[in-house]
Amino acid sequence: MKLATLRTSSGTIAVRQDGDVFVEIDGYADLGKLFAQEGWEQIAAAAQGAQHSVEGADLAAVVPAPSKVLCVGLNYASHITEMGRDLPEYPTLFAKFAETLTGPYDDVELPEADPAIDWEAELTVVIGKKARRVSEAEAGEYIAGYTVANDISMRSYQFRTKEWLQGKMWEASTPVGPVVVTPDELATDAAITTEVDGQQMQVGSIGDLVHGPEFLVSYISEIITLNPGDLILTGTTGGVGRARTPEVYITDGQTVKTGIEGIGELVNVARAQVPATAGA
Amino acid sequence: MKLATLRTSSGTIAVRQDGDVFVEIDGYADLGKLFAQEGWEQIAAAAQGAQHSVEGADLAAVVPAPSKVLCVGLNYASHITEMGRDLPEYPTLFAKFAETLTGPYDDVELPEADPAIDWEAELTVVIGKKARRVSEAEAGEYIAGYTVANDISMRSYQFRTKEWLQGKMWEASTPVGPVVVTPDELATDAAITTEVDGQQMQVGSIGDLVHGPEFLVSYISEIITLNPGDLILTGTTGGVGRARTPEVYITDGQTVKTGIEGIGELVNVARAQVPATAGA
Repeated sequence: MKLATLRTSSGTIAVRQDGDVFVEIDGYADLGKLFAQEGWEQIAAAAQGAQHSVEGADLAAVVPAPSKVLCVGLNYASHITEMGRDLPEYPTLFAKFAETLTGPYDDVELPEADPAIDWEAELTVVIGKKARRVSEAEAGEYIAGYTVANDISMRSYQFRTKEWLQGKMWEASTPVGPVVVTPDELATDAAITTEVDGQQMQVGSIGDLVHGPEFLVSYISEIITLNPGDLILTGTTGGVGRARTPEVYITDGQTVKTGIEGIGELVNVARAQVPATAGA
Repeated sequence: MKLATLRTSSGTIAVRQDGDVFVEIDGYADLGKLFAQEGWEQIAAAAQGAQHSVEGADLAAVVPAPSKVLCVGLNYASHITEMGRDLPEYPTLFAKFAETLTGPYDDVELPEADPAIDWEAELTVVIGKKARRVSEAEAGEYIAGYTVANDISMRSYQFRTKEWLQGKMWEASTPVGPVVVTPDELATDAAITTEVDGQQMQVGSIGDLVHGPEFLVSYISEIITLNPGDLILTGTTGGVGRARTPEVYITDGQTVKTGIEGIGELVNVARAQVPATAGA
């Protein structure tokens, strides 16, 4: 099953994708609200609401306002190597906030304050059930499905201090979507890719993850309760702009596409921040 | 004005402190909801609701569910020195989540998984108005007031990786309160202290902050929107357990008191995690 959050003239609505149409799941304004409902799988499968064409649909972040967004750094062997580090015993965790997220086809602002803005395609776990201190073996029951995120990173801010957060939490900088696929629809070796203006920048396999989704749900849930709709961005593969010689960053007007086979693709145009009017 | 969030048998309620009584501010379940209301200062000042004795009152975290909790590391000259670092050009930022917060007099669980649990008394900024790209000069208008947090830190997890988050986000580990004082009630050189079982462990002055509240509101709001009720923990002063020789950590049954002159004191008893029953 493929699910999304559609923007309509009367607000957002959770939808199921049936081929080239989205079918409204009445009563649920977004996937976060759907996943908070016990038995959401049956509700989503049975929905018979109004239909919308998939082509040209205006989608929101699959979960627009999760209570938590956790992110993993350095989790693909290939990316760890290019950043010059050893394979880790523990996952490196950092955070984003709800305001950091944006829709899968939205423009992304390049802040004036940072000249080094980079892409990071990431497999993203979406929580489907409240999880606290669950084992790795049971963790699969707490996963609603998977989506794609582009963890767009303001590298100058990220490396101003040892803690990366300030380069990772910019307003509306992380596109998430286009859909959530239930776990049965995702191959364990699905390809993960980034293109900038048609040039392939990242290509890897989600099978290359050092710490996989079930491990991460278990590890994080030892620390804090995961709620339905919470997101775990599992880290990126090799090929980021900062690791290139010379470094390559996103510039005004470029189109960045990040995708995972079996889920879909984010397509975002980068727009330079409009400078504040003098005296305004 | 002093404000708090009181737990009652019918849920939480925002209250104003008048000497030794709390007065209910009808219609606002907690201070987060109050601060989201334009003109909250007048509403709070005029409230005439039911009264409760301050003594023995059961208080919740002043804002139980902020949209964001930002924290600053290494922000007192004395603490930076004891941790062996240079004075920073930029604030080091990391995150907590709503589930990480707990009430000012609640017990705090010491997780089995980490033997090194430490105190950090912190002046905490409470946002009173939506703030995005505000200057340091205007930032004061966006601050509702100040409270105290004890940024209890699971040091083993904190230093498992370079990113501190996993030692800083444990469930119900950060007491916040007891009240929010409006800015007019806080002296610029108020004392900040921690005691463990009556022994003074930290003593400093909030005047020793490297990056002050207005700077932090401005700096963070360049990156992301701050919402009413959001918290900024401004960092701790010298005297943490990890910086002692030998290191000193919190043990089962100890009482930790963290206070700031003019605001009040958090009083939390540490309780070892009850191990899961075998086979349960």
